[in-house]
Amino acid sequence: MIVLGVDPGIAVTGYGLITLNQLNEPELITYGIINSTAEGDTSSRLVYLYRALTDLINEYNPQYCAVEKLFFQKNHKTAMAVSEARGVITLCIAQHSLPLAEYTPNAVKQAVTSYGNASKSQIQEMVKISLRLEEIPKPDDAADALAIALCHIGYLQMQRLIED
Amino acid sequence: MIVLGVDPGIAVTGYGLITLNQLNEPELITYGIINSTAEGDTSSRLVYLYRALTDLINEYNPQYCAVEKLFFQKNHKTAMAVSEARGVITLCIAQHSLPLAEYTPNAVKQAVTSYGNASKSQIQEMVKISLRLEEIPKPDDAADALAIALCHIGYLQMQRLIED
Repeated sequence: MIVLGVDPGIAVTGYGLITLNQLNEPELITYGIINSTAEGDTSSRLVYLYRALTDLINEYNPQYCAVEKLFFQKNHKTAMAVSEARGVITLCIAQHSLPLAEYTPNAVKQAVTSYGNASKSQIQEMVKISLRLEEIPKPDDAADALAIALCHIGYLQMQRLIED
Repeated sequence: MIVLGVDPGIAVTGYGLITLNQLNEPELITYGIINSTAEGDTSSRLVYLYRALTDLINEYNPQYCAVEKLFFQKNHKTAMAVSEARGVITLCIAQHSLPLAEYTPNAVKQAVTSYGNASKSQIQEMVKISLRLEEIPKPDDAADALAIALCHIGYLQMQRLIED
């Protein structure tokens, strides 16, 4: 079982791929960012994002995907721009017939730390611990994407327990 | 010169294709809607929208595209959902290497009726008159898309006059 977590952004989209090892523990495959800053306008950035994400899915063949869901943002303009990137990410995942789960930042906090008001650094610490890493993954967008992937793998594990 | 105008929506996306005839007047090619209502969830709708828009571009080969730009919406959730559709539309147009113009509803009103506070029905009446149609195009999404295309063809004509 491979899970892809994605933290959508206008310029930088974080991603993280994790799996379950033979002990049924989450294990890191890889993480990183898709950085379209150099691409100029929105159109070029979306094309770049679409291509990079397609390549990533083709390379790692995840069976499940989870994406951060925006439910409210103070900056309306930013929210709409990030939503455009989300649209492209959703399209890309759906074109690969992968099931997509969506988590709000609070749901991720709740799932990863059992604490809805956890700080960003607490989340990152939990990502490091859960995946038995030596360092906190950098940059933040990649750490966030791993948190989303962890959130979803936890859900899938629970679902499996219920079905058993 | 063929211009594609698009009015993005979550379920219904309007489109309109116009050209300039030999008298340099805007002329209707076709208009309609991409209706993904039957597709169920957001993922399926975005895949449907992407495919339908790709088919449309391949069939009519527009050289210019113009899309309605949201700059503010009272309903935050709707704004983000429409932005996801906009992201997919922008991607699709950019993948065909077509230049994309964006107009806010007010810019369209200003351009089509020279009057920023024009009502929806006044805009539609102007679309009917400008394209010498017998009826107002239906549904509203298609009429809006034609208004956006008209707005852009007007701009392109002006640009040509300046360059001459």
